[in-house]
Amino acid sequence: MDSVKLYENSLLYIVKEDSEIPWLKIFSKQNCKELSDCDKQTRERLFNVVLIVEKTMIEYYKPEKINIAIFGNYLPKLHIHIMARFKNDSHFPEPMWGKKQRDSKLKLPDFDTFIKLLLEKL
Amino acid sequence: MDSVKLYENSLLYIVKEDSEIPWLKIFSKQNCKELSDCDKQTRERLFNVVLIVEKTMIEYYKPEKINIAIFGNYLPKLHIHIMARFKNDSHFPEPMWGKKQRDSKLKLPDFDTFIKLLLEKL
Repeated sequence: MDSVKLYENSLLYIVKEDSEIPWLKIFSKQNCKELSDCDKQTRERLFNVVLIVEKTMIEYYKPEKINIAIFGNYLPKLHIHIMARFKNDSHFPEPMWGKKQRDSKLKLPDFDTFIKLLLEKL
Repeated sequence: MDSVKLYENSLLYIVKEDSEIPWLKIFSKQNCKELSDCDKQTRERLFNVVLIVEKTMIEYYKPEKINIAIFGNYLPKLHIHIMARFKNDSHFPEPMWGKKQRDSKLKLPDFDTFIKLLLEKL
């Protein structure tokens, strides 16, 4: 499924993962499999955007913890997962790829407002 | 359990995760919960070490994919997991936190030689 790009610049774009939690994926436009395959400019911009997303998630959602992952085992096209985690989400404290702990009854503030805030910072 | 430090400088240290795969954890010495809580110098050094570990793992082990994760849901002390993944490891293509796929029959080159190579680069 091709997700809608929430943000895009010359080096990368951001899409939303369909999930109960706030979960974004940042894709490199440069065709690289691993972080070290990217050019320095792309890598620095990726890290920079990760930090901005993290800080905006913390500010807006006040999560228990931010989780970040670079896997790409199924899709070897460099992308970074960034997730806001909450004590009562379905998997906490397990990673979202781990064993489900409970049915989630998360009630979170509006996602569109979060994206609006994020776009102002990017 | 307090693992043996494989490497240490003024900002961070590296320990081995006990696993079938090559799996290192890089800990920030600065007491921070999230990446964005760290000072810039620590963060840049962490990223730099991640890249060196990744490149050395690729060179030495020729893995299918490198996996990187920052969770800290159980232990809110900033650390970065970096793993070399192989098609026939116990979980591939799932993350190491996901569902086990098979019994692993991995035969990998010597870990001590990998660490020797890594220390030369750090």
